[in-house]
Amino acid sequence: MRQTIRQIISRHGRTSAARRFRIAYFATVTIGLVAVVLYTLSGLPDWAHTLTSRTTFVVAALYVVEWLTRIWVAPEGSATPAWRARLRYVLSPAGVSDFAAMLALPIGLNVDLTGDDKSLFCVVWSLKLVRYSEGLAMLGRVIVNQRASLISVLTVFAIVLLLSATLVYVLERHVQPDVFHSIPAAMWWAIVTLTTTGYGDVTPQTVGGRMIAGVVMVSGIAVFAIRAGILANGFSVELRRRDFLRTWDLCSRVPLFRDGGVELIATIVHLLRIDDARPGEVLMRRGQDGDCMYFIVSGRVRVEAGRADIELGPGDFFGEMALLSGDARSATVTVIDTAELLVLDIADFRDLAGKRPDLIRSISEVAQRRGHVTA
Amino acid sequence: MRQTIRQIISRHGRTSAARRFRIAYFATVTIGLVAVVLYTLSGLPDWAHTLTSRTTFVVAALYVVEWLTRIWVAPEGSATPAWRARLRYVLSPAGVSDFAAMLALPIGLNVDLTGDDKSLFCVVWSLKLVRYSEGLAMLGRVIVNQRASLISVLTVFAIVLLLSATLVYVLERHVQPDVFHSIPAAMWWAIVTLTTTGYGDVTPQTVGGRMIAGVVMVSGIAVFAIRAGILANGFSVELRRRDFLRTWDLCSRVPLFRDGGVELIATIVHLLRIDDARPGEVLMRRGQDGDCMYFIVSGRVRVEAGRADIELGPGDFFGEMALLSGDARSATVTVIDTAELLVLDIADFRDLAGKRPDLIRSISEVAQRRGHVTA
Amino acid sequence: MRQTIRQIISRHGRTSAARRFRIAYFATVTIGLVAVVLYTLSGLPDWAHTLTSRTTFVVAALYVVEWLTRIWVAPEGSATPAWRARLRYVLSPAGVSDFAAMLALPIGLNVDLTGDDKSLFCVVWSLKLVRYSEGLAMLGRVIVNQRASLISVLTVFAIVLLLSATLVYVLERHVQPDVFHSIPAAMWWAIVTLTTTGYGDVTPQTVGGRMIAGVVMVSGIAVFAIRAGILANGFSVELRRRDFLRTWDLCSRVPLFRDGGVELIATIVHLLRIDDARPGEVLMRRGQDGDCMYFIVSGRVRVEAGRADIELGPGDFFGEMALLSGDARSATVTVIDTAELLVLDIADFRDLAGKRPDLIRSISEVAQRRGHVTA
Amino acid sequence: MRQTIRQIISRHGRTSAARRFRIAYFATVTIGLVAVVLYTLSGLPDWAHTLTSRTTFVVAALYVVEWLTRIWVAPEGSATPAWRARLRYVLSPAGVSDFAAMLALPIGLNVDLTGDDKSLFCVVWSLKLVRYSEGLAMLGRVIVNQRASLISVLTVFAIVLLLSATLVYVLERHVQPDVFHSIPAAMWWAIVTLTTTGYGDVTPQTVGGRMIAGVVMVSGIAVFAIRAGILANGFSVELRRRDFLRTWDLCSRVPLFRDGGVELIATIVHLLRIDDARPGEVLMRRGQDGDCMYFIVSGRVRVEAGRADIELGPGDFFGEMALLSGDARSATVTVIDTAELLVLDIADFRDLAGKRPDLIRSISEVAQRRGHVTA
Repeated sequence: MRQTIRQIISRHGRTSAARRFRIAYFATVTIGLVAVVLYTLSGLPDWAHTLTSRTTFVVAALYVVEWLTRIWVAPEGSATPAWRARLRYVLSPAGVSDFAAMLALPIGLNVDLTGDDKSLFCVVWSLKLVRYSEGLAMLGRVIVNQRASLISVLTVFAIVLLLSATLVYVLERHVQPDVFHSIPAAMWWAIVTLTTTGYGDVTPQTVGGRMIAGVVMVSGIAVFAIRAGILANGFSVELRRRDFLRTWDLCSRVPLFRDGGVELIATIVHLLRIDDARPGEVLMRRGQDGDCMYFIVSGRVRVEAGRADIELGPGDFFGEMALLSGDARSATVTVIDTAELLVLDIADFRDLAGKRPDLIRSISEVAQRRGHVTA
Repeated sequence: MRQTIRQIISRHGRTSAARRFRIAYFATVTIGLVAVVLYTLSGLPDWAHTLTSRTTFVVAALYVVEWLTRIWVAPEGSATPAWRARLRYVLSPAGVSDFAAMLALPIGLNVDLTGDDKSLFCVVWSLKLVRYSEGLAMLGRVIVNQRASLISVLTVFAIVLLLSATLVYVLERHVQPDVFHSIPAAMWWAIVTLTTTGYGDVTPQTVGGRMIAGVVMVSGIAVFAIRAGILANGFSVELRRRDFLRTWDLCSRVPLFRDGGVELIATIVHLLRIDDARPGEVLMRRGQDGDCMYFIVSGRVRVEAGRADIELGPGDFFGEMALLSGDARSATVTVIDTAELLVLDIADFRDLAGKRPDLIRSISEVAQRRGHVTA
Repeated sequence: MRQTIRQIISRHGRTSAARRFRIAYFATVTIGLVAVVLYTLSGLPDWAHTLTSRTTFVVAALYVVEWLTRIWVAPEGSATPAWRARLRYVLSPAGVSDFAAMLALPIGLNVDLTGDDKSLFCVVWSLKLVRYSEGLAMLGRVIVNQRASLISVLTVFAIVLLLSATLVYVLERHVQPDVFHSIPAAMWWAIVTLTTTGYGDVTPQTVGGRMIAGVVMVSGIAVFAIRAGILANGFSVELRRRDFLRTWDLCSRVPLFRDGGVELIATIVHLLRIDDARPGEVLMRRGQDGDCMYFIVSGRVRVEAGRADIELGPGDFFGEMALLSGDARSATVTVIDTAELLVLDIADFRDLAGKRPDLIRSISEVAQRRGHVTA
Repeated sequence: MRQTIRQIISRHGRTSAARRFRIAYFATVTIGLVAVVLYTLSGLPDWAHTLTSRTTFVVAALYVVEWLTRIWVAPEGSATPAWRARLRYVLSPAGVSDFAAMLALPIGLNVDLTGDDKSLFCVVWSLKLVRYSEGLAMLGRVIVNQRASLISVLTVFAIVLLLSATLVYVLERHVQPDVFHSIPAAMWWAIVTLTTTGYGDVTPQTVGGRMIAGVVMVSGIAVFAIRAGILANGFSVELRRRDFLRTWDLCSRVPLFRDGGVELIATIVHLLRIDDARPGEVLMRRGQDGDCMYFIVSGRVRVEAGRADIELGPGDFFGEMALLSGDARSATVTVIDTAELLVLDIADFRDLAGKRPDLIRSISEVAQRRGHVTA
């Protein structure tokens, strides 16, 4: 029981129960946040006010259940007794923010809070979104990996910020003493400008100030672009890395690739794309142009070629006929059981035909030996 | 007849009739949209008012013709009877939006509409532009392919948005109760800031609010840059993929490459660029520096080398002399019939000379055997 | 004489006279433009007014000389008589804009022009900058090469622009009839928003309008990023292509590489960087860390190794000792005659040591055979 | 003594004393800058005023010490006597800015300065941040390397700026004579728009002006994106280059790689990442999934595998077991002495297994021969 729940609520659970739990979790957090956000609107009708208020309580109650469950299932190790694992969770940042999120209930029940103050829960509740956010986890890894570069760029950014703020402050302070009354005030202008936000609430008006501002805009903004480039690039490396690992795992479960050894997998892993298909999904239709072929890692599909239907399962592949012949699809393929598929695009199929003609040959041999029309 | 029309109006038609139809279609939709847009201008003179009004009717009438034609030519399959194909079109999103576009006519005739309301057609009519827009289709594929990454990043974006809106709301609501009166109002500020739009209609004014805003600008905007990077990168991958497929098709129709086998095509396909040339276009002039050579896939060109003119057709190539010798062009080449050409740039020609010297040798042998000066 | 002038004023002239002419040309055009721009300032003192006015006349007079010279030297070909070449220049866009630039003189002399109208020259005069701008020429090539992609993206941009303008117009027109009085007016808002400029002169104020605007900002801006990505990427491809061609030319003039054949050049050309060094420039100092080595294509350098000075010329290389041994530089190297150098960075040197150990071996053999310390 | 100090304050010092000095230096400069910046705030309480004032003096006093120390330790060479090295430092830009920073003290003591004027020190003091900023040094190298491209793009930018400013000036000057009173004033609008800052203090209001502005936004901003792309790309090349050099150095100190020769290093150097680990850092925990392996270049780590603890030092590697078997980590590894580690990620480990199976084999052989469980 504890073991099952632990797996369902784990971050990396790949079972369908874990997936469904994550969706429900996201939905609950989102509903709670929307309720709190709407609650701050002043012109709300009474029924909406009551509804958002009640929703807040229900969600807070669920958070109590969550907190207790997480304490209960805290994973003890061979060397860690259960009580220590539980204490570790309670004191961890996740445990503390879960506790704070939970507090909304008693506070809401006992203390007289105006709508304004309730909004503070929002800050705590939105931290719940962090838990299962793969994007944030990846962003974190990118920042850790690129920390040296980012610190370099942020230092440059700080120097440019300070220099431009001081220069514009010196030039503008006598003309606009209200907005450029101090260097910190000028830094507000500088940061709004260097990020290209440009509110326009504070703008230089002297000729000198505008010339400095022009130089800052033209040259300083580039620093920002460099940092954005580092992050965007680091993120795409991290995305490729994640895909690489899962694709490699799936590849090594397809007999055709596994038999070719690690060299073959190392070649083909860069060409394949993962497709998680649900039952009922139509992967290809008879008569369409063929633009890819599929390898089945798990799950089952039905091939309707007009005469008799065939079922294919793990290790099989289909869709190669249209790529080999250049004709239209000769069958319609539908997913029966949730399937993990590896997709080989026509462009990469052709590229592979140039680099590893033996693999394409063995694909077409296997297809002929089977003697069925595989789309 | 039906078959012909169906090919002309198909999205992927490569015949010149299909191309011309698409241009006319874009022109009609654009004219219709311009008319509706201008119709909303209040200070328009009478003649312009009448003109835009009439144009709207004409275009709407054309849309009726289009809707009926599309019903008529709806492609039945071997298993799909014509009535079912027609019904499928009528109920498809494309069919529904075509029907809605058409409705402008009867509504315009019978109902008393002010200029204002007519603008609503504009929304429906602009959906017509979607049909043949290759860019949107590619963008759609990019979003589907990158959906996992985009959802990751958008979740991060949502967390940053919510956190920054709540924090600034808490800090600013007492100072600026008019603009920061609720969290949704603060989210307007946050979204305007995080996208670097920065209207400046709502800006934080407390020291705390400005410090939070500074952190949001410096760190939060990066999330946006990451998403832009994912999309831009996915789009360029999709562009390369499309070019790859067409270039491969054209390559395999040039005997020189076809004879070299799939390995050769797989090497050279990345170096070639497609050029669709129209009759009368001058591809090179005598005396210019040579910066590329051409392979003819279809169409014909005339080579004027001073003495006698030669005509070249499918499978021929020209322009290699200047690359081999380093001299200026020795002939002027003009397109006679619409030609599909593959262009090999001088930089890639030299790269190829390093990687596949045999190909360059056979190019120069073929050129000598022919015994004519090919520019 | 005509031949000499023609070479000096040609766009691609690589002689030092041609370079000096281009610098003088840019300086003249810039001075002229600055004079016209400053002339429009109202609060200018008299002497400055007179100075800018006179400068304008002088520059316009130079433009007359330029126009006549360009007519005189217009390049006749073997088949083109001189008069036809001259007429071709006069009627070309460049000739017409040169003529228009020249007209500033008679107009300024005879007609009573206020400072305001004089500013119109500025538009014409700034076209002069186009002539020798390598950046614009490259941008033009990028746009031509990527035209299909750019049209795709611009169509998507147009659809997003139109849809968002219409929707916000429908939602805002009753609340802000002054700014959202028509769809064209709403398009001004949409374009300011979609480019992330965000002036803030026109902003949606209804809840619905702001929600649409939020969606437009979050999703629509991506289209803009994609287009920027296509252009930036195309530009960097074009930059690499230009560098590739010149580096290849220089490489094939270094005996060490030329003897290695086209395969060697095709490998090393991607690793080398061009450095155009002027007389007196110090390329390395004794005692510094060695981070690159140099190959001399043309020009001469002096190597001061402490004992006796050596001069090196075309085909020689230096700086390899520090890379091979890892020690500090053992000599100071100064340029004597303007030199074209190929630079091999230490990172690429090591990469090359892995890929082509034979080349590194022959470099160190040549160095030893010569028996001198080459830094 | 002088030699030691010189090494500590050198830019590239890798000793821990040099690192600690740089941190203290950054801290001092930052405290000084914060004090000057806060001093300009008008509403500061007395104690804060006194505190910032005193801090300024202390930091200025430290700058005097710094200036004198730098004069004292100025590095004389075999050919350069000490007095000349000292004079060179005093007259160098760094020496002059150090002197100017120092002047804050006597000026602050003797002259009656208002808070406003003190802010001028800020400009000088922030130059101190430049000295050890690796980011600025890299940005400088990027600008030098890409100067040709950047000049090309900036020329295009200047042309677009001038043309759009003149056109909008011509169209708007009669409608908004206050803001578009001259071309320089219109250039302020153009630069604010082309950088997408968009303050909104100056916006076109005529239909013609808005149409020009729309074209400028849609097309002109791309020029800016191209320049940002060149810089971001150049910066990432420079980052890779720096990492490459240090990784190569570390690689060539690991016997396993050194014995494989330069070809092996040239392959593996692109796959390894550097990790500078501090004492006490836990590199992996028993029971975790294995996602990388480590090679020790310097320093020591302790491996706790449950039974007996082992210590590993330079040349050893660990963490390969989990990658080879796919099981969880079998040991916990903690750093004892500050360690330079090379990290091989699981994705690259697999890639390497495809490309260089011999290396993976010798890694697993070495691991078995040693006979200990290495995590």
